[in-house]
Amino acid sequence: MKTSFTANNPAFEQRVRESFALQNAMKTIGATLTRVMPGEVSISMPFNEELTQQHGYIHAGIISTVLDSACGYAAFSLMAENAAVLTIEFKINLLSPAKGERFEALGRVKKAGRNITVSEGEFYAYEGENKKLVASMVATMMAVYDREATEN
Amino acid sequence: MKTSFTANNPAFEQRVRESFALQNAMKTIGATLTRVMPGEVSISMPFNEELTQQHGYIHAGIISTVLDSACGYAAFSLMAENAAVLTIEFKINLLSPAKGERFEALGRVKKAGRNITVSEGEFYAYEGENKKLVASMVATMMAVYDREATEN
Amino acid sequence: MKTSFTANNPAFEQRVRESFALQNAMKTIGATLTRVMPGEVSISMPFNEELTQQHGYIHAGIISTVLDSACGYAAFSLMAENAAVLTIEFKINLLSPAKGERFEALGRVKKAGRNITVSEGEFYAYEGENKKLVASMVATMMAVYDREATEN
Amino acid sequence: MKTSFTANNPAFEQRVRESFALQNAMKTIGATLTRVMPGEVSISMPFNEELTQQHGYIHAGIISTVLDSACGYAAFSLMAENAAVLTIEFKINLLSPAKGERFEALGRVKKAGRNITVSEGEFYAYEGENKKLVASMVATMMAVYDREATEN
Repeated sequence: MKTSFTANNPAFEQRVRESFALQNAMKTIGATLTRVMPGEVSISMPFNEELTQQHGYIHAGIISTVLDSACGYAAFSLMAENAAVLTIEFKINLLSPAKGERFEALGRVKKAGRNITVSEGEFYAYEGENKKLVASMVATMMAVYDREATEN
Repeated sequence: MKTSFTANNPAFEQRVRESFALQNAMKTIGATLTRVMPGEVSISMPFNEELTQQHGYIHAGIISTVLDSACGYAAFSLMAENAAVLTIEFKINLLSPAKGERFEALGRVKKAGRNITVSEGEFYAYEGENKKLVASMVATMMAVYDREATEN
Repeated sequence: MKTSFTANNPAFEQRVRESFALQNAMKTIGATLTRVMPGEVSISMPFNEELTQQHGYIHAGIISTVLDSACGYAAFSLMAENAAVLTIEFKINLLSPAKGERFEALGRVKKAGRNITVSEGEFYAYEGENKKLVASMVATMMAVYDREATEN
Repeated sequence: MKTSFTANNPAFEQRVRESFALQNAMKTIGATLTRVMPGEVSISMPFNEELTQQHGYIHAGIISTVLDSACGYAAFSLMAENAAVLTIEFKINLLSPAKGERFEALGRVKKAGRNITVSEGEFYAYEGENKKLVASMVATMMAVYDREATEN
């Protein structure tokens, strides 16, 4: 499968994977980076009852966590070598209860810019043969260059 | 401190606390429910390096998780006895890096309705004497009545 | 072209067109309803210098007005005969300046429900042979039944 | 009344008023700039039946148009002399029908930064002695410096 974007940095996949490995939150959630393409990233996670809300489904915020990472790394995959990525804001719509055996978050760049990149994400639940759309996200990411990177 | 709302259900605090206790995600995050008022809820959490993103700050999605619960329970505190609360959607703006010793999420109802309630949330970082606004949320909650509650 | 939705009401197109005709704001903007399918609606408008912001492009709020109508009528096209549609909330991302000879807003249902429907919208600018994505929207719509319809 | 912000540019009010005067959309809507403070702007408009939706209330997109200008100019009032302001994205929640004799949009900066400023807005309806909250907005604004200003 191909995306319509071209990565500026040939080492984009390695950069994304190295940064993802630094996200302790992903380890705690049990999320793994399954696919990295220019402008598109997938992250998988199993059901985990330690991450549920009051009705036994995955908490909307945990869904957001995985989608935010998917959207952020989709954006980061297109950024220059000296850029870091920061989430400015995101919005999520919860469409169905997050019940299933495992889940997948897909993040895709909608519009890439030098400073601002907008990504979209979808979160799916898998149960046996069934796949269901659980949530959708729109996220605005900012590239931050050189040393100002992590201080916003 | 008082809020401008009146709870329909005199047992609102107990209901909120019982439901919060069912959110395993809050235990995993180490979040505790510190205050429950009609239309207003506070949740605290310590810094925890297992919940960080790639720069060592609390992951935006974890911030969202706590804010979503604060906004949801602020809405739930005003709902009738036979209602459950579901998050329809939320939006978060990340304003400063989430660094600090501990954090507090404050959720407040902006407009309560029989079906739809809109809440606002703020997430603060505390470090020594300093308090800093890290993120703000707007969340749309839906009351679901009787048995249809958890199936959306 | 076909959509993946089936309209509950065989008169869906007529209902959408009649309601659209009541939106005086659409007349003022010069917007016309170009296509009505189950779960999908297109609205066109010409460039009009009376609707610009300070740099001479169409104002982001005017873009929102047309996209909100497109998203709302996409949702309405799937609703039952005794339902009215209300916008609960929407979010728009502005991706490029709204310059062009004419514009088209496309609204599509993402998830339809009895009470809540989520639609997505895209706003395109046309200039000669060129088509450019100007903005994207996510909107949450509510079906309101019978006489409670217009009072929220 | 005072705000907690200090304008970087002593001519902030004049700059805001001159830019507002260039927004033809504001003239078409009949909106006037009533107050300009550092980080806070108010805009008023009368009821106008040419701006309504299908139930006879002001269209949600027209509300967005006025709120976007209020939020944008609140941000612009704090920006440097060589900066222009662009809306990156906004989200609006519609809380009550926009019926009334006149309306006021209030935009306030929540967090100002060199590149990104987040503003909040509220839209009120006035009818006789009554004032009612109709909608609330969160908007993300970007400062663009020097000649790159209007091309995103």
